[in-house]
Amino acid sequence: MRLKSKNLRWIAGRPVVILTEKAAKKLNVHVDDRVKVSLNKKSIYAVVDLFEGVVRDAEIGLSKEISSYLRTKGNETLEISTAEMFLGAKIIKKKLDGASLTKEEIVKVVSEITNNNLTETEIAYFVSAEKNQGMTLQETIYLTEAMINSGKHIHFKDKIVADKHCIGGIAGNRTTPIVVSICTAAGLKMPKSSSRAITSASGTADVMETIANVELSTDKIKKIVDKTNGCLVWGGSLGLAPSDDKIIQVERILNLDVEPQLLASIISKKISAGSNRIVVDIPYGGGKMKTKGEAKALGDKFAKIGKHFNVKFKPVYTDGTQPIGNGFGPVLEMQDVLSVLRNEPDCPQDLKKKSLYLAAEIMSLCGIYFAGSKAKKILESGEAYKKFKEIVNAQNESKDFDKRVKSLSLAKVHFHYYSPKSGKVVEINNQKINSLCRILGTPENPRAGVYLHRHLGKVKEGDDLLTLYSESEERLKDAEKFLLEYQPIKIV
Amino acid sequence: MRLKSKNLRWIAGRPVVILTEKAAKKLNVHVDDRVKVSLNKKSIYAVVDLFEGVVRDAEIGLSKEISSYLRTKGNETLEISTAEMFLGAKIIKKKLDGASLTKEEIVKVVSEITNNNLTETEIAYFVSAEKNQGMTLQETIYLTEAMINSGKHIHFKDKIVADKHCIGGIAGNRTTPIVVSICTAAGLKMPKSSSRAITSASGTADVMETIANVELSTDKIKKIVDKTNGCLVWGGSLGLAPSDDKIIQVERILNLDVEPQLLASIISKKISAGSNRIVVDIPYGGGKMKTKGEAKALGDKFAKIGKHFNVKFKPVYTDGTQPIGNGFGPVLEMQDVLSVLRNEPDCPQDLKKKSLYLAAEIMSLCGIYFAGSKAKKILESGEAYKKFKEIVNAQNESKDFDKRVKSLSLAKVHFHYYSPKSGKVVEINNQKINSLCRILGTPENPRAGVYLHRHLGKVKEGDDLLTLYSESEERLKDAEKFLLEYQPIKIV
Repeated sequence: MRLKSKNLRWIAGRPVVILTEKAAKKLNVHVDDRVKVSLNKKSIYAVVDLFEGVVRDAEIGLSKEISSYLRTKGNETLEISTAEMFLGAKIIKKKLDGASLTKEEIVKVVSEITNNNLTETEIAYFVSAEKNQGMTLQETIYLTEAMINSGKHIHFKDKIVADKHCIGGIAGNRTTPIVVSICTAAGLKMPKSSSRAITSASGTADVMETIANVELSTDKIKKIVDKTNGCLVWGGSLGLAPSDDKIIQVERILNLDVEPQLLASIISKKISAGSNRIVVDIPYGGGKMKTKGEAKALGDKFAKIGKHFNVKFKPVYTDGTQPIGNGFGPVLEMQDVLSVLRNEPDCPQDLKKKSLYLAAEIMSLCGIYFAGSKAKKILESGEAYKKFKEIVNAQNESKDFDKRVKSLSLAKVHFHYYSPKSGKVVEINNQKINSLCRILGTPENPRAGVYLHRHLGKVKEGDDLLTLYSESEERLKDAEKFLLEYQPIKIV
Repeated sequence: MRLKSKNLRWIAGRPVVILTEKAAKKLNVHVDDRVKVSLNKKSIYAVVDLFEGVVRDAEIGLSKEISSYLRTKGNETLEISTAEMFLGAKIIKKKLDGASLTKEEIVKVVSEITNNNLTETEIAYFVSAEKNQGMTLQETIYLTEAMINSGKHIHFKDKIVADKHCIGGIAGNRTTPIVVSICTAAGLKMPKSSSRAITSASGTADVMETIANVELSTDKIKKIVDKTNGCLVWGGSLGLAPSDDKIIQVERILNLDVEPQLLASIISKKISAGSNRIVVDIPYGGGKMKTKGEAKALGDKFAKIGKHFNVKFKPVYTDGTQPIGNGFGPVLEMQDVLSVLRNEPDCPQDLKKKSLYLAAEIMSLCGIYFAGSKAKKILESGEAYKKFKEIVNAQNESKDFDKRVKSLSLAKVHFHYYSPKSGKVVEINNQKINSLCRILGTPENPRAGVYLHRHLGKVKEGDDLLTLYSESEERLKDAEKFLLEYQPIKIV
């Protein structure tokens, strides 16, 4: 059936068309059915909504997801056809039934996701299938490859391009800006792209954004890296492995982190970004990995899949029993990073130590000898801080580093939480600290978050334990309730 | 935050609100985030869309799913708050992680689904979890109980109330109208509610609808059953176990049929409808159950769960290797039913035989002796046909049975498919026949469908095999393509 396009200023979160009841009847479709919308040789699958008074019977209203894909201006003649359950969904069902998928099938699913042809609900079935039926190493390799091929790539002329990744789960743990500053100051090329927060208080991109422009084109990134050796940008807008962002969005609904997806996601993004020497930080004992055995099993898969693509992934296994750093939330974490880079005596020692360790691992993976002592020297001499400034200024295309740092500030509404008794702090729960931050409004409110005054160890009654920051009284109250009910800090 | 309600004539398929970008920013929510919308003491969770030009900054646009639930008229002050991942989603995640759920947790999920507080995507995760992690018998009992308690009930004074159910998967197989006519003529009470098609060409409700009103209130049903002993209505509008309809909608996206859900769905609906003697037809060898062992494992669960609720479920295991009857599609199946009830000599013998068998099983389960010969006598004497007329007339509140039957007609666009060679028909694939019907437009187009001229056995080149009916040339062409590509009839 043919209908005239009408662009609506409507962001629906998925491709949706609006029909009148009469048009829907004629087309023999119902609410939530899928239709195929075609213009010239481009097609997109969309879900049907009925909305009287917005379009005429001869028109089809398009959500922005469709109009921007088909590049409609309005009043074009679109071909609308009903869509049977199609190949992408059939393949997902096959996986949900426990079968292994072929290379062609995985390529198909990834391309259907990339092209917006699968709904959130279908992607949820795919995520569940990956989670519960698992994927063989071979399937994970196919998935990785399909994700690499579905997106853009960045190429560097250098033989060695370094990178790091942490699988997450630890509150704070903002080592990346420090590690990149040290490694690039040591002469390594390190084009670091990071994510925004998925389930945590903030991601490296959220933290960097408090003082730097993090949404850059791949061309700009190449220029900056050629000039400064590194960058600290958001990976989301680069178009590397684009299906991944959609899958993550669906995983986020239940805070899932499905292993084959995690492997394919990280490896495909690193390879697409042009890296070939990557240290993967896998904390265990309190974050996503409960035991060292579990952590090692995952680390082995990184190494094996990497090898298939001729890229060195070196897993390192670190202490995941408690948060790292004092601040949790974009601005609070940036303050921690700055205090380590500036060698302030009261900087968080755990963050400094871990950053030095990771920097040395990367340097050594890239063939630099005496990496440990070199990394320490670079940090403590102020070279790393200078490098960090240089990178931020390059990303901002302006020498405004000092000004941006000076203007950092925290949310005004806050609450002090004191130790209710004397004793020993025996647990600081990563997940609960992250939940607390999200209730306070991170990462959307960069000035919100939690400051941790103590790590594991002795504490006296009335000692400062936490300070909570939020932009909203209401959120602060919710956070206080959460704090009392879930006790993220256990004192005995 | 408070916003003024604006009812939109918009059926979105799920509760959705429309905000301007400015309002969304103020509320700190993004597209696809969830908000809680409250009016007085009623609340509903909804997903956020941004749509400029439809509402003002101080307004919130409501899809019909919300306005009908909150009973808004427009311009009421609604309280909007952001919703963290809440209990329902946490429980689903727990199940997806492999844990068993407690009674309270299952009650919570069912009530969240019933109250529209879980999105399709979250329900998809729940369905996947049930499918891949399985559910214990105890969990399935909790689920059944929660579903019974979440909906309406029908009560009959009679000690014995009969029912039947087929788990489906067999094309045609429209025994229900015949079985109900026989059993009610034998004096049994049998208030039969049926579904519309889920994955097949048509459901019993779709077939009955070709000549009868099937959407009746529970009060009307009680009256009709008190008068005629039986009814043949659609179960969907009765409000029995309402969460089930939503789950089925999500299962349908991938044509899933998840066992614990299937058990809970059938058992809860039968109990809510007041039945206590139920024969469950479980075909094997070609439909949903591959082997008799599989079929028996499922049958045992029906019996066990039924026992917990003091209701007798008797599983019977029937031949599922090929379609039953000649016509597939609402009108075509009604024609088969009528020809059996009228004892026409060329009526489909397989349908007649199976209907007699099931009727006898039900009668015997309800304490009637010599059930087999009695059933046969009731059918062949025309008593069953008379009863069927009586029930249809009662549902239509008019003596229009003959007129309605006379006006039955098939879609005009058709296609004959002849045997391409002489040989033996060795397979008629149920699923492919159903797919063929759906491509032709069933169940939405009741006059569409497939007529099967031959069952398994010898065939000569040029013999009639199938006639395809559709309302649309385009769909007929798609069906011809499917027929040639997928070969639902195998001849050797």
